[in-house]
Amino acid sequence: MTIGIVGLGLIGGSLAKALKAYTDTVVWGGDISQNVISAALDLGVIDGRLSQNCLSKCDMVVVTLYPAETVEYVKKHARLFKKGAIVMDCCGVKSFVCSALKSVAENAQFIFIGAHPMAGAARGGFENSFPELFLNASLILTPYENTPRKAVKTVWKLALKLGFGRLQIVTPERHDEIVSYTSHLCHLLSCAYISSPLAPEYEGFTAGSFRDMTRIARINETMWSELLIENREHLCREADEFILRLRELMELVRSQDRRGLCRLLRKCREIKENLDAKQEKSG
Amino acid sequence: MTIGIVGLGLIGGSLAKALKAYTDTVVWGGDISQNVISAALDLGVIDGRLSQNCLSKCDMVVVTLYPAETVEYVKKHARLFKKGAIVMDCCGVKSFVCSALKSVAENAQFIFIGAHPMAGAARGGFENSFPELFLNASLILTPYENTPRKAVKTVWKLALKLGFGRLQIVTPERHDEIVSYTSHLCHLLSCAYISSPLAPEYEGFTAGSFRDMTRIARINETMWSELLIENREHLCREADEFILRLRELMELVRSQDRRGLCRLLRKCREIKENLDAKQEKSG
Repeated sequence: MTIGIVGLGLIGGSLAKALKAYTDTVVWGGDISQNVISAALDLGVIDGRLSQNCLSKCDMVVVTLYPAETVEYVKKHARLFKKGAIVMDCCGVKSFVCSALKSVAENAQFIFIGAHPMAGAARGGFENSFPELFLNASLILTPYENTPRKAVKTVWKLALKLGFGRLQIVTPERHDEIVSYTSHLCHLLSCAYISSPLAPEYEGFTAGSFRDMTRIARINETMWSELLIENREHLCREADEFILRLRELMELVRSQDRRGLCRLLRKCREIKENLDAKQEKSG
Repeated sequence: MTIGIVGLGLIGGSLAKALKAYTDTVVWGGDISQNVISAALDLGVIDGRLSQNCLSKCDMVVVTLYPAETVEYVKKHARLFKKGAIVMDCCGVKSFVCSALKSVAENAQFIFIGAHPMAGAARGGFENSFPELFLNASLILTPYENTPRKAVKTVWKLALKLGFGRLQIVTPERHDEIVSYTSHLCHLLSCAYISSPLAPEYEGFTAGSFRDMTRIARINETMWSELLIENREHLCREADEFILRLRELMELVRSQDRRGLCRLLRKCREIKENLDAKQEKSG
Protein backbone atom coordinates (compact mmCIF):
# COMPACT_ATOMS: atom_id res chain seq x y z
CA MET A 1 0.00 0.00 0.00
CA THR A 2 1.25 3.47 -0.89
CA ILE A 3 0.13 6.41 1.22
CA GLY A 4 0.66 10.10 0.66
CA ILE A 5 0.60 12.51 3.59
CA VAL A 6 0.03 16.19 2.93
CA GLY A 7 1.39 18.25 5.82
CA LEU A 8 3.86 16.80 8.31
CA GLY A 9 2.81 18.61 11.48
CA LEU A 10 1.83 16.93 14.73
CA ILE A 11 -0.85 14.77 13.09
CA GLY A 12 0.81 14.16 9.71
CA GLY A 13 4.22 13.62 11.28
CA SER A 14 2.86 11.20 13.88
CA LEU A 15 0.96 9.39 11.14
CA ALA A 16 4.14 8.95 9.08
CA LYS A 17 6.06 7.76 12.13
CA ALA A 18 3.31 5.32 13.11
CA LEU A 19 2.98 3.99 9.55
CA LYS A 20 6.73 3.31 9.44
CA ALA A 21 6.80 1.84 12.95
CA TYR A 22 3.79 -0.45 12.70
CA THR A 23 3.17 -1.20 9.00
CA ASP A 24 5.14 -1.82 5.82
CA THR A 25 3.44 0.94 3.89
CA VAL A 26 5.30 3.10 1.38
CA VAL A 27 4.90 6.68 2.61
CA TRP A 28 5.30 9.86 0.56
CA GLY A 29 5.24 13.09 2.50
CA GLY A 30 4.72 16.72 1.59
CA ASP A 31 5.12 19.83 3.69
CA ILE A 32 5.43 23.57 3.15
CA SER A 33 8.75 23.49 5.03
CA GLN A 34 11.80 22.03 3.31
CA ASN A 35 13.43 21.53 6.72
CA VAL A 36 10.55 19.33 7.86
CA ILE A 37 10.76 17.20 4.69
CA SER A 38 14.52 16.83 5.18
CA ALA A 39 14.03 15.84 8.83
CA ALA A 40 11.36 13.28 7.87
CA LEU A 41 13.63 11.85 5.16
CA ASP A 42 16.59 11.70 7.57
CA LEU A 43 14.48 9.86 10.13
CA GLY A 44 13.29 7.49 7.43
CA VAL A 45 9.62 8.12 8.27
CA ILE A 46 8.86 9.04 4.66
CA ASP A 47 10.21 7.26 1.60
CA GLY A 48 10.29 10.42 -0.45
CA ARG A 49 8.81 13.79 -1.19
CA LEU A 50 5.17 13.72 -2.31
CA SER A 51 5.44 15.04 -5.86
CA GLN A 52 2.49 15.40 -8.25
CA ASN A 53 3.75 12.28 -9.96
CA CYS A 54 3.76 10.32 -6.70
CA LEU A 55 0.32 11.61 -5.80
CA SER A 56 -1.28 9.73 -8.69
CA LYS A 57 0.28 6.47 -7.48
CA CYS A 58 -1.08 6.69 -3.91
CA ASP A 59 -3.77 4.21 -2.81
CA MET A 60 -4.56 6.61 0.02
CA VAL A 61 -3.88 10.29 0.56
CA VAL A 62 -4.24 11.80 4.02
CA VAL A 63 -4.48 15.59 4.07
CA THR A 64 -3.52 16.99 7.47
CA LEU A 65 -3.96 20.69 6.76
CA TYR A 66 -6.34 23.25 8.32
CA PRO A 67 -9.96 23.12 7.04
CA ALA A 68 -9.90 25.82 4.33
CA GLU A 69 -6.45 24.70 3.12
CA THR A 70 -7.64 21.09 3.05
CA VAL A 71 -10.59 21.92 0.81
CA GLU A 72 -8.36 24.03 -1.42
CA TYR A 73 -5.71 21.31 -1.69
CA VAL A 74 -8.15 18.52 -2.53
CA LYS A 75 -9.98 20.65 -5.11
CA LYS A 76 -6.72 21.71 -6.72
CA HIS A 77 -5.36 18.15 -6.94
CA ALA A 78 -8.66 16.36 -7.64
CA ARG A 79 -7.64 15.26 -11.14
CA LEU A 80 -4.30 13.91 -9.92
CA PHE A 81 -5.63 11.34 -7.43
CA LYS A 82 -5.75 7.76 -8.68
CA LYS A 83 -9.27 6.68 -9.60
CA GLY A 84 -10.73 4.81 -6.62
CA ALA A 85 -8.04 6.12 -4.24
CA ILE A 86 -9.14 6.95 -0.71
CA VAL A 87 -8.59 10.59 0.22
CA MET A 88 -9.05 11.60 3.86
CA ASP A 89 -8.79 14.82 5.81
CA CYS A 90 -8.06 15.11 9.56
CA CYS A 91 -9.91 18.33 10.41
CA GLY A 92 -11.69 19.04 13.67
CA VAL A 93 -14.76 20.27 11.75
CA LYS A 94 -16.45 18.00 9.26
CA SER A 95 -19.58 19.61 7.72
CA PHE A 96 -17.57 22.36 6.05
CA VAL A 97 -14.99 19.98 4.61
CA CYS A 98 -17.27 17.10 3.65
CA SER A 99 -19.95 19.21 1.99
CA ALA A 100 -17.34 21.14 -0.02
CA LEU A 101 -15.68 17.96 -1.31
CA LYS A 102 -18.60 15.59 -2.02
CA SER A 103 -19.15 16.51 -5.65
CA VAL A 104 -15.43 17.10 -6.21
CA ALA A 105 -14.74 13.47 -5.28
CA GLU A 106 -17.65 12.13 -7.30
CA ASN A 107 -16.60 14.03 -10.40
CA ALA A 108 -12.96 12.97 -10.18
CA GLN A 109 -13.85 9.41 -9.10
CA PHE A 110 -11.84 9.17 -5.90
CA ILE A 111 -13.34 8.25 -2.53
CA PHE A 112 -13.35 11.06 0.00
CA ILE A 113 -13.82 10.11 3.66
CA GLY A 114 -13.96 12.74 6.39
CA ALA A 115 -11.84 11.70 9.35
CA HIS A 116 -11.07 13.15 12.76
CA PRO A 117 -8.43 11.35 14.81
CA MET A 118 -9.25 12.37 18.40
CA ALA A 119 -5.66 12.91 19.40
CA GLY A 120 -3.53 15.94 20.06
CA ALA A 121 -0.78 17.37 22.19
CA ALA A 122 -0.04 20.69 23.82
CA ARG A 123 2.82 21.34 21.39
CA GLY A 124 2.41 20.98 17.66
CA GLY A 125 4.70 20.58 14.68
CA PHE A 126 6.75 17.72 13.25
CA GLU A 127 9.32 18.09 16.05
CA ASN A 128 6.67 17.10 18.60
CA SER A 129 5.12 14.30 16.55
CA PHE A 130 5.49 10.73 17.78
CA PRO A 131 4.28 7.31 16.61
CA GLU A 132 2.20 6.56 19.73
CA LEU A 133 0.02 9.68 19.38
CA PHE A 134 -2.99 7.61 18.28
CA LEU A 135 -2.69 4.89 20.92
CA ASN A 136 -6.20 4.04 22.20
CA ALA A 137 -7.62 7.19 20.56
CA SER A 138 -11.03 7.31 18.92
CA LEU A 139 -11.13 7.69 15.16
CA ILE A 140 -14.26 9.44 13.97
CA LEU A 141 -15.17 8.83 10.33
CA THR A 142 -17.92 10.72 8.51
CA PRO A 143 -18.47 8.86 5.21
CA TYR A 144 -21.20 9.93 2.77
CA GLU A 145 -24.27 7.67 2.43
CA ASN A 146 -22.86 6.28 -0.82
CA THR A 147 -19.26 5.78 0.35
CA PRO A 148 -18.26 2.14 -0.35
CA ARG A 149 -18.23 0.11 2.88
CA LYS A 150 -15.04 -1.51 1.73
CA ALA A 151 -13.20 1.81 1.80
CA VAL A 152 -14.29 2.48 5.39
CA LYS A 153 -13.12 -1.02 6.32
CA THR A 154 -9.74 -0.42 4.70
CA VAL A 155 -9.27 2.77 6.71
CA TRP A 156 -10.24 1.12 9.97
CA LYS A 157 -8.01 -1.91 9.37
CA LEU A 158 -5.08 0.45 8.91
CA ALA A 159 -6.09 2.62 11.88
CA LEU A 160 -6.09 -0.42 14.16
CA LYS A 161 -2.46 -1.07 13.21
CA LEU A 162 -1.62 2.53 14.14
CA GLY A 163 -2.98 1.99 17.63
CA PHE A 164 -6.44 3.57 17.43
CA GLY A 165 -8.75 2.07 20.02
CA ARG A 166 -12.23 2.92 18.82
CA LEU A 167 -14.06 3.66 15.60
CA GLN A 168 -17.03 6.03 15.54
CA ILE A 169 -19.06 6.53 12.38
CA VAL A 170 -21.38 9.53 12.31
CA THR A 171 -22.60 12.14 9.84
CA PRO A 172 -20.48 15.28 9.47
CA GLU A 173 -23.25 17.33 11.09
CA ARG A 174 -23.48 15.03 14.08
CA HIS A 175 -19.68 15.09 14.41
CA ASP A 176 -19.65 18.88 14.61
CA GLU A 177 -22.45 18.86 17.17
CA ILE A 178 -20.64 16.33 19.38
CA VAL A 179 -17.15 17.82 19.28
CA SER A 180 -18.53 21.31 19.96
CA TYR A 181 -19.08 19.92 23.46
CA THR A 182 -16.36 17.29 23.87
CA SER A 183 -13.50 19.35 22.44
CA HIS A 184 -14.21 22.86 21.16
CA LEU A 185 -15.94 24.05 24.34
CA CYS A 186 -13.02 22.77 26.44
CA HIS A 187 -10.63 24.94 24.43
CA LEU A 188 -12.88 27.99 24.77
CA LEU A 189 -13.18 27.50 28.55
CA SER A 190 -9.47 26.94 29.02
CA CYS A 191 -8.71 30.17 27.14
CA ALA A 192 -11.41 32.15 28.97
CA TYR A 193 -9.94 30.85 32.22
CA ILE A 194 -6.31 31.72 31.54
CA SER A 195 -6.95 35.16 30.03
CA SER A 196 -7.48 36.61 33.51
CA PRO A 197 -5.03 39.39 34.39
CA LEU A 198 -4.41 37.40 37.60
CA ALA A 199 -3.01 34.29 35.89
CA PRO A 200 0.61 35.51 35.59
CA GLU A 201 0.57 36.98 39.13
CA TYR A 202 -0.47 33.79 40.82
CA GLU A 203 2.30 31.56 39.55
CA GLY A 204 3.51 29.53 42.52
CA PHE A 205 0.00 29.25 43.98
CA THR A 206 -1.21 26.56 41.58
CA ALA A 207 -1.55 22.80 41.59
CA GLY A 208 -2.99 20.03 39.43
CA SER A 209 -6.40 21.62 38.91
CA PHE A 210 -4.81 24.74 37.41
CA ARG A 211 -2.41 22.69 35.29
CA ASP A 212 -5.24 20.59 33.83
CA MET A 213 -7.54 23.57 33.30
CA THR A 214 -4.87 25.45 31.34
CA ARG A 215 -3.01 22.73 29.39
CA ILE A 216 -4.90 23.35 26.15
CA ALA A 217 -4.67 27.14 26.52
CA ARG A 218 -1.29 26.63 24.88
CA ILE A 219 -3.34 26.87 21.74
CA ASN A 220 -2.49 27.03 18.03
CA GLU A 221 -4.43 30.24 17.41
CA THR A 222 -4.33 29.97 13.60
CA MET A 223 -5.94 26.54 13.54
CA TRP A 224 -8.30 27.03 16.45
CA SER A 225 -9.68 30.39 15.36
CA GLU A 226 -10.70 28.65 12.13
CA LEU A 227 -12.18 25.57 13.87
CA LEU A 228 -14.13 27.55 16.49
CA ILE A 229 -15.59 29.99 13.96
CA GLU A 230 -16.43 27.19 11.53
CA ASN A 231 -18.36 25.39 14.30
CA ARG A 232 -19.77 28.61 15.81
CA GLU A 233 -23.44 27.68 15.97
CA HIS A 234 -23.02 24.45 17.90
CA LEU A 235 -20.22 25.92 20.01
CA CYS A 236 -22.05 29.08 21.08
CA ARG A 237 -25.13 27.05 21.99
CA GLU A 238 -22.98 24.73 24.13
CA ALA A 239 -21.23 27.71 25.73
CA ASP A 240 -24.59 29.34 26.53
CA GLU A 241 -25.77 26.13 28.18
CA PHE A 242 -22.50 25.87 30.07
CA ILE A 243 -23.04 29.37 31.47
CA LEU A 244 -26.53 28.39 32.66
CA ARG A 245 -25.10 25.38 34.52
CA LEU A 246 -22.29 27.49 35.98
CA ARG A 247 -24.80 30.10 37.18
CA GLU A 248 -26.84 27.35 38.83
CA LEU A 249 -23.75 26.21 40.76
CA MET A 250 -22.86 29.82 41.62
CA GLU A 251 -26.35 30.44 42.96
CA LEU A 252 -26.05 27.44 45.30
CA VAL A 253 -22.65 28.72 46.47
CA ARG A 254 -23.80 32.32 46.90
CA SER A 255 -26.95 31.37 48.84
CA GLN A 256 -24.92 28.97 51.01
CA ASP A 257 -27.21 26.07 50.08
CA ARG A 258 -24.86 23.38 51.33
CA ARG A 259 -27.31 20.54 50.79
CA GLY A 260 -28.24 21.60 47.25
CA LEU A 261 -24.61 22.17 46.28
CA CYS A 262 -23.58 18.84 47.74
CA ARG A 263 -26.32 17.11 45.75
CA LEU A 264 -25.28 18.72 42.48
CA LEU A 265 -21.56 18.06 43.05
CA ARG A 266 -22.35 14.43 43.84
CA LYS A 267 -24.17 14.20 40.50
CA CYS A 268 -21.03 15.55 38.79
CA ARG A 269 -18.86 13.00 40.56
CA GLU A 270 -21.17 10.17 39.55
CA ILE A 271 -21.20 11.24 35.88
CA LYS A 272 -17.40 11.32 35.90
CA GLU A 273 -17.10 7.96 37.70
CA ASN A 274 -19.47 6.35 35.21
CA LEU A 275 -17.51 7.73 32.27
CA ASP A 276 -14.22 6.56 33.78
CA ALA A 277 -15.67 3.09 34.37
CA LYS A 278 -16.93 2.87 30.77
CA GLN A 279 -13.56 3.95 29.43
CA GLU A 280 -11.68 1.45 31.58
CA LYS A 281 -14.02 -1.23 30.29
CA SER A 282 -13.59 -0.30 26.64
CA GLY A 283 -9.92 0.69 26.74
CA MET B 1 10.65 15.34 66.71
CA THR B 2 7.24 13.90 67.50
CA ILE B 3 4.36 14.71 65.16
CA GLY B 4 0.68 13.98 65.57
CA ILE B 5 -1.56 13.71 62.50
CA VAL B 6 -5.29 14.08 62.94
CA GLY B 7 -7.10 12.43 60.02
CA LEU B 8 -5.36 9.90 57.78
CA GLY B 9 -7.06 10.65 54.46
CA LEU B 10 -5.25 11.53 51.24
CA ILE B 11 -3.35 14.45 52.82
CA GLY B 12 -2.83 13.03 56.32
CA GLY B 13 -2.00 9.57 55.00
CA SER B 14 0.47 10.94 52.45
CA LEU B 15 2.01 13.12 55.16
CA ALA B 16 2.52 10.09 57.45
CA LYS B 17 3.99 8.06 54.57
CA ALA B 18 6.32 10.90 53.57
CA LEU B 19 7.43 11.54 57.16
CA LYS B 20 8.31 7.86 57.54
CA ALA B 21 9.98 7.67 54.12
CA TYR B 22 12.06 10.83 54.30
CA THR B 23 12.57 11.72 58.01
CA ASP B 24 13.11 9.98 61.34
CA THR B 25 10.15 11.62 63.01
CA VAL B 26 7.98 9.77 65.52
CA VAL B 27 4.46 9.86 64.07
CA TRP B 28 1.22 9.38 65.99
CA GLY B 29 -1.91 9.11 63.85
CA GLY B 30 -5.61 9.45 64.53
CA ASP B 31 -8.58 8.72 62.30
CA ILE B 32 -12.31 8.22 62.65
CA SER B 33 -11.91 4.80 60.99
CA GLN B 34 -10.38 1.95 62.97
CA ASN B 35 -9.57 0.16 59.70
CA VAL B 36 -7.50 3.09 58.51
CA ILE B 37 -5.55 3.22 61.79
CA SER B 38 -4.91 -0.53 61.56
CA ALA B 39 -3.76 -0.20 57.96
CA ALA B 40 -1.43 2.69 58.87
CA LEU B 41 -0.01 0.69 61.79
CA ASP B 42 0.45 -2.40 59.58
CA LEU B 43 2.31 -0.34 56.99
CA GLY B 44 4.45 1.18 59.74
CA VAL B 45 3.64 4.73 58.64
CA ILE B 46 2.47 5.65 62.14
CA ASP B 47 4.16 4.61 65.36
CA GLY B 48 0.90 4.42 67.24
CA ARG B 49 -2.60 5.74 67.70
CA LEU B 50 -2.81 9.43 68.59
CA SER B 51 -4.33 9.27 72.09
CA GLN B 52 -5.01 12.33 74.26
CA ASN B 53 -1.92 11.38 76.23
CA CYS B 54 0.23 11.30 73.06
CA LEU B 55 -1.22 14.61 71.89
CA SER B 56 0.39 16.50 74.78
CA LYS B 57 3.80 15.07 73.85
CA CYS B 58 3.72 16.20 70.20
CA ASP B 59 6.07 18.97 69.06
CA MET B 60 3.82 19.45 66.07
CA VAL B 61 0.21 18.49 65.38
CA VAL B 62 -1.11 18.55 61.82
CA VAL B 63 -4.90 18.54 61.55
CA THR B 64 -6.04 17.31 58.14
CA LEU B 65 -9.80 17.54 58.62
CA TYR B 66 -12.40 19.65 56.78
CA PRO B 67 -12.58 23.34 57.83
CA ALA B 68 -15.42 23.26 60.39
CA GLU B 69 -14.16 19.97 61.87
CA THR B 70 -10.64 21.40 62.06
CA VAL B 71 -11.78 24.41 64.07
CA GLU B 72 -13.87 22.19 66.32
CA TYR B 73 -11.02 19.73 66.90
CA VAL B 74 -8.43 22.40 67.74
CA LYS B 75 -10.83 24.23 70.08
CA LYS B 76 -11.76 21.01 71.85
CA HIS B 77 -8.14 19.88 72.33
CA ALA B 78 -6.61 23.32 72.92
CA ARG B 79 -5.66 22.60 76.52
CA LEU B 80 -4.02 19.29 75.60
CA PHE B 81 -1.40 20.63 73.17
CA LYS B 82 2.09 21.05 74.60
CA LYS B 83 2.88 24.70 75.35
CA GLY B 84 4.84 26.09 72.40
CA ALA B 85 3.85 23.21 70.12
CA ILE B 86 3.15 24.02 66.47
CA VAL B 87 -0.40 23.18 65.40
CA MET B 88 -1.22 23.36 61.68
CA ASP B 89 -4.31 22.77 59.59
CA CYS B 90 -4.34 21.82 55.90
CA CYS B 91 -7.60 23.40 54.74
CA GLY B 92 -8.23 24.92 51.33
CA VAL B 93 -9.77 28.02 52.98
CA LYS B 94 -7.75 29.99 55.49
CA SER B 95 -9.63 33.10 56.74
CA PHE B 96 -12.34 31.02 58.38
CA VAL B 97 -9.90 28.68 60.12
CA CYS B 98 -7.22 31.20 61.08
CA SER B 99 -9.57 33.83 62.46
CA ALA B 100 -11.45 31.22 64.51
CA LEU B 101 -8.26 29.85 66.08
CA LYS B 102 -6.12 32.95 66.74
CA SER B 103 -7.29 33.66 70.28
CA VAL B 104 -7.67 29.94 71.04
CA ALA B 105 -3.96 29.43 70.33
CA GLU B 106 -2.92 32.54 72.26
CA ASN B 107 -4.93 31.57 75.32
CA ALA B 108 -3.63 27.98 75.35
CA GLN B 109 -0.09 29.03 74.43
CA PHE B 110 0.46 26.87 71.37
CA ILE B 111 1.50 28.22 67.97
CA PHE B 112 -1.16 27.89 65.30
CA ILE B 113 -0.03 28.21 61.67
CA GLY B 114 -2.50 28.03 58.80
CA ALA B 115 -1.17 25.79 56.02
CA HIS B 116 -2.37 24.75 52.59
CA PRO B 117 -0.32 22.10 50.81
CA MET B 118 -1.17 22.65 47.12
CA ALA B 119 -1.43 18.97 46.32
CA GLY B 120 -4.29 16.63 45.63
CA ALA B 121 -5.43 13.66 43.61
CA ALA B 122 -8.61 12.62 41.85
CA ARG B 123 -9.21 9.87 44.42
CA GLY B 124 -9.09 10.53 48.13
CA GLY B 125 -8.71 8.46 51.27
CA PHE B 126 -5.83 6.68 52.98
CA GLU B 127 -5.88 3.94 50.33
CA ASN B 128 -4.91 6.47 47.68
CA SER B 129 -2.33 8.32 49.77
CA PHE B 130 1.33 8.11 48.77
CA PRO B 131 4.59 9.59 50.04
CA GLU B 132 5.38 11.52 46.84
CA LEU B 133 2.13 13.53 46.87
CA PHE B 134 3.95 16.73 47.88
CA LEU B 135 6.82 16.44 45.43
CA ASN B 136 7.54 19.92 43.97
CA ALA B 137 4.22 21.22 45.34
CA SER B 138 3.79 24.71 46.77
CA LEU B 139 3.19 25.00 50.50
CA ILE B 140 1.19 28.09 51.39
CA LEU B 141 1.53 29.24 55.00
CA THR B 142 -0.61 31.96 56.55
CA PRO B 143 1.01 32.83 59.89
CA TYR B 144 -0.37 35.63 62.08
CA GLU B 145 1.67 38.85 62.37
CA ASN B 146 2.96 37.73 65.77
CA THR B 147 3.75 34.10 64.85
CA PRO B 148 7.40 33.39 65.81
CA ARG B 149 9.60 33.29 62.69
CA LYS B 150 11.36 30.28 64.13
CA ALA B 151 8.15 28.23 64.00
CA VAL B 152 7.62 29.07 60.32
CA LYS B 153 11.24 28.09 59.65
CA THR B 154 10.76 24.77 61.45
CA VAL B 155 7.73 23.97 59.29
CA TRP B 156 9.50 24.86 56.05
CA LYS B 157 12.62 22.86 56.96
CA LEU B 158 10.42 19.82 57.49
CA ALA B 159 8.37 20.50 54.34
CA LEU B 160 11.53 20.57 52.23
CA LYS B 161 12.35 17.06 53.45
CA LEU B 162 8.87 15.93 52.37
CA GLY B 163 9.52 17.12 48.83
CA PHE B 164 7.72 20.47 48.73
CA GLY B 165 9.22 22.72 46.09
CA ARG B 166 8.09 26.20 47.04
CA LEU B 167 7.05 28.16 50.09
CA GLN B 168 4.51 30.97 49.85
CA ILE B 169 3.72 33.15 52.84
CA VAL B 170 0.57 35.26 52.61
CA THR B 171 -2.24 36.46 54.85
CA PRO B 172 -5.27 34.16 55.20
CA GLU B 173 -7.39 36.71 53.29
CA ARG B 174 -4.92 36.90 50.42
CA HIS B 175 -4.74 33.09 50.31
CA ASP B 176 -8.50 32.82 49.92
CA GLU B 177 -8.51 35.45 47.19
CA ILE B 178 -5.75 33.70 45.24
CA VAL B 179 -7.04 30.13 45.45
CA SER B 180 -10.55 31.24 44.52
CA TYR B 181 -9.00 31.67 41.07
CA THR B 182 -6.19 29.10 40.96
CA SER B 183 -8.16 26.20 42.44
CA HIS B 184 -11.77 26.76 43.49
CA LEU B 185 -12.87 28.25 40.15
CA CYS B 186 -11.30 25.29 38.30
CA HIS B 187 -13.43 22.90 40.32
CA LEU B 188 -16.58 24.92 39.70
CA LEU B 189 -15.89 25.04 35.93
CA SER B 190 -15.10 21.35 35.70
CA CYS B 191 -18.38 20.50 37.45
CA ALA B 192 -20.40 22.96 35.36
CA TYR B 193 -18.84 21.39 32.27
CA ILE B 194 -19.55 17.77 33.11
CA SER B 195 -23.08 18.28 34.40
CA SER B 196 -24.37 18.52 30.81
CA PRO B 197 -26.94 15.86 29.91
CA LEU B 198 -24.73 15.18 26.87
CA ALA B 199 -21.66 14.07 28.84
CA PRO B 200 -22.67 10.40 29.27
CA GLU B 201 -23.92 10.17 25.66
CA TYR B 202 -20.70 11.30 24.08
CA GLU B 203 -18.41 8.73 25.62
CA GLY B 204 -16.12 7.52 22.84
CA PHE B 205 -15.96 10.96 21.22
CA THR B 206 -13.51 12.45 23.68
CA ALA B 207 -9.77 13.03 23.87
CA GLY B 208 -7.22 14.74 26.09
CA SER B 209 -9.03 18.07 26.31
CA PHE B 210 -12.14 16.39 27.72
CA ARG B 211 -10.09 14.24 30.09
CA ASP B 212 -8.25 17.26 31.52
CA MET B 213 -11.38 19.39 31.74
CA THR B 214 -13.21 16.72 33.74
CA ARG B 215 -10.51 15.16 35.95
CA ILE B 216 -11.42 17.18 39.03
CA ALA B 217 -15.17 16.69 38.46
CA ARG B 218 -14.55 13.43 40.34
CA ILE B 219 -15.08 15.63 43.34
CA ASN B 220 -15.40 14.99 47.07
CA GLU B 221 -18.74 16.77 47.40
CA THR B 222 -18.68 16.89 51.22
CA MET B 223 -15.38 18.71 51.39
CA TRP B 224 -15.83 20.87 48.32
CA SER B 225 -19.33 22.10 49.13
CA GLU B 226 -17.83 23.40 52.39
CA LEU B 227 -14.77 24.99 50.73
CA LEU B 228 -16.69 26.65 47.90
CA ILE B 229 -19.36 28.09 50.20
CA GLU B 230 -16.76 29.25 52.73
CA ASN B 231 -14.93 31.13 49.95
CA ARG B 232 -18.13 32.23 48.18
CA GLU B 233 -17.41 35.95 47.86
CA HIS B 234 -14.06 35.63 46.13
CA LEU B 235 -15.23 32.63 44.12
CA CYS B 236 -18.43 34.19 42.77
CA ARG B 237 -16.53 37.35 41.79
CA GLU B 238 -13.98 35.22 39.92
CA ALA B 239 -16.74 33.21 38.26
CA ASP B 240 -18.53 36.41 37.17
CA GLU B 241 -15.31 37.69 35.64
CA PHE B 242 -14.74 34.35 33.94
CA ILE B 243 -18.18 34.59 32.33
CA LEU B 244 -17.34 38.07 31.00
CA ARG B 245 -14.15 36.74 29.40
CA LEU B 246 -16.00 33.72 27.99
CA ARG B 247 -18.67 35.99 26.50
CA GLU B 248 -15.96 38.10 24.88
CA LEU B 249 -14.53 34.99 23.21
CA MET B 250 -18.03 33.83 22.21
CA GLU B 251 -18.77 37.20 20.63
CA LEU B 252 -15.63 36.96 18.48
CA VAL B 253 -16.64 33.43 17.44
CA ARG B 254 -20.26 34.33 16.76
CA SER B 255 -19.38 37.41 14.70
CA GLN B 256 -16.74 35.42 12.78
CA ASP B 257 -14.05 37.94 13.74
CA ARG B 258 -11.14 35.71 12.77
CA ARG B 259 -8.51 38.35 13.33
CA GLY B 260 -9.82 39.40 16.75
CA LEU B 261 -10.24 35.80 17.88
CA CYS B 262 -6.77 34.91 16.68
CA ARG B 263 -5.32 37.85 18.59
CA LEU B 264 -7.06 36.88 21.83
CA LEU B 265 -6.15 33.18 21.50
CA ARG B 266 -2.54 34.16 20.87
CA LYS B 267 -2.60 36.17 24.12
CA CYS B 268 -3.86 33.05 25.92
CA ARG B 269 -1.08 30.94 24.43
CA GLU B 270 1.54 33.48 25.46
CA ILE B 271 0.26 33.64 29.05
CA LYS B 272 0.40 29.84 29.23
CA GLU B 273 3.86 29.65 27.65
CA ASN B 274 5.20 32.25 30.08
CA LEU B 275 3.75 30.37 33.04
CA ASP B 276 5.20 27.07 31.79
CA ALA B 277 8.61 28.71 31.33
CA LYS B 278 8.55 30.17 34.84
CA GLN B 279 7.58 26.81 36.32
CA GLU B 280 10.28 24.97 34.43
CA LYS B 281 12.78 27.52 35.73
CA SER B 282 11.65 27.25 39.34
CA GLY B 283 10.87 23.51 39.39
